[in-house]
Amino acid sequence: MKIGVIGATGKAGSKIIFEALDRGHQVTALVRNAKKAKTLFDSKVTIIEKDAFAITKQDLSNLDVVIDAFAVPMGKHLAYQHIDLAVHLIHLLRETSTPRVIFILGAGSLQSDKGLFVEQLKQIPNSQDWIDTPESQAFELDFLRTVKNVNWVGVSPSQSFVDGPKTDYILGQDNVLFNEQQKSEVSTGTMAVAILDELETPTVHQARFTVCNK
Amino acid sequence: MKIGVIGATGKAGSKIIFEALDRGHQVTALVRNAKKAKTLFDSKVTIIEKDAFAITKQDLSNLDVVIDAFAVPMGKHLAYQHIDLAVHLIHLLRETSTPRVIFILGAGSLQSDKGLFVEQLKQIPNSQDWIDTPESQAFELDFLRTVKNVNWVGVSPSQSFVDGPKTDYILGQDNVLFNEQQKSEVSTGTMAVAILDELETPTVHQARFTVCNK
Repeated sequence: MKIGVIGATGKAGSKIIFEALDRGHQVTALVRNAKKAKTLFDSKVTIIEKDAFAITKQDLSNLDVVIDAFAVPMGKHLAYQHIDLAVHLIHLLRETSTPRVIFILGAGSLQSDKGLFVEQLKQIPNSQDWIDTPESQAFELDFLRTVKNVNWVGVSPSQSFVDGPKTDYILGQDNVLFNEQQKSEVSTGTMAVAILDELETPTVHQARFTVCNK
Repeated sequence: MKIGVIGATGKAGSKIIFEALDRGHQVTALVRNAKKAKTLFDSKVTIIEKDAFAITKQDLSNLDVVIDAFAVPMGKHLAYQHIDLAVHLIHLLRETSTPRVIFILGAGSLQSDKGLFVEQLKQIPNSQDWIDTPESQAFELDFLRTVKNVNWVGVSPSQSFVDGPKTDYILGQDNVLFNEQQKSEVSTGTMAVAILDELETPTVHQARFTVCNK
């Protein structure tokens, strides 16, 4: 498949690219900083340098899949870019079925046994300094759920999303997942595998799934 | 004031322009079809011809106010353009306080005594043919309510929004309004007056108000 990744040099995006290359897919990295991408990836990756909000329909027209792995640092200042970019990409793809577009969301929009996880996060002291990020990503899913004319999928990590190698994994839909050790954690490596598995064998359509390290 | 109107040739937009001209404001019409606008307005209106989704930050930079009076015909096909355009405009104006931006929303997001008005609309036979339009506009308000870094205001008509001259009016916030004759209707002329009054004497910030003919 021809796979484009936005936010390609980030912790989620880069692992997805390595996994996609391992499986023989053709990868395009859409990045703000081509130099950083060239250092990170070998010459098999096509690099397009542009601001994510400047991406055009034309940039996406040749792809089978676009993965939005764009993320800003946790905080108040740029949190809104998650929802703004999701709408920008969805708008470019309105009334199409290709490319399929995968949005990496936060865990905040998952349901826990105490309600929406983002509401629990708000109870953490000083959460007002960073809560805008999970809130924006939770609203991103609210938006996606209104979208019926684009081939989209959302994916949320578990409560912790850590840099690390791939493991076996558990899949879920809208509830926070825990493994047998009662740990709710997914590694970037596992997230990449779960996404590539879903791309190669589609099972989710216009909905969100979630992944947990087994 | 320097006032820009998107959807300037529509039923709401054109009345706003006439009212603004009457009050001596400088008006810019941002329109898809300059010829139609030139027929409708006299030479005092500056006309910029471009697709609403191609509007740039630069186009708005000289304005005190932008009014989003863009509307697509009621129906399934293009309803999503309401939410997509709202996010496009908000994105251009993130982290600014000028221009102020006014979104003309539907009545669907108002609360009635039976709950959200759009839920009542869904009970009308064959509403599935057009419900996407009020739903998209209701979601537009959900989105705006997440926006803390733009100087926005939303305005909803009453249950009926009809072409007609200005009258005295009643203002409300989030509930469907009725006049003394138990009629919930606002004319385009009244809507234009209420918006210009709000622009000249701001009372609403990052919230929605609603208008009813008295």
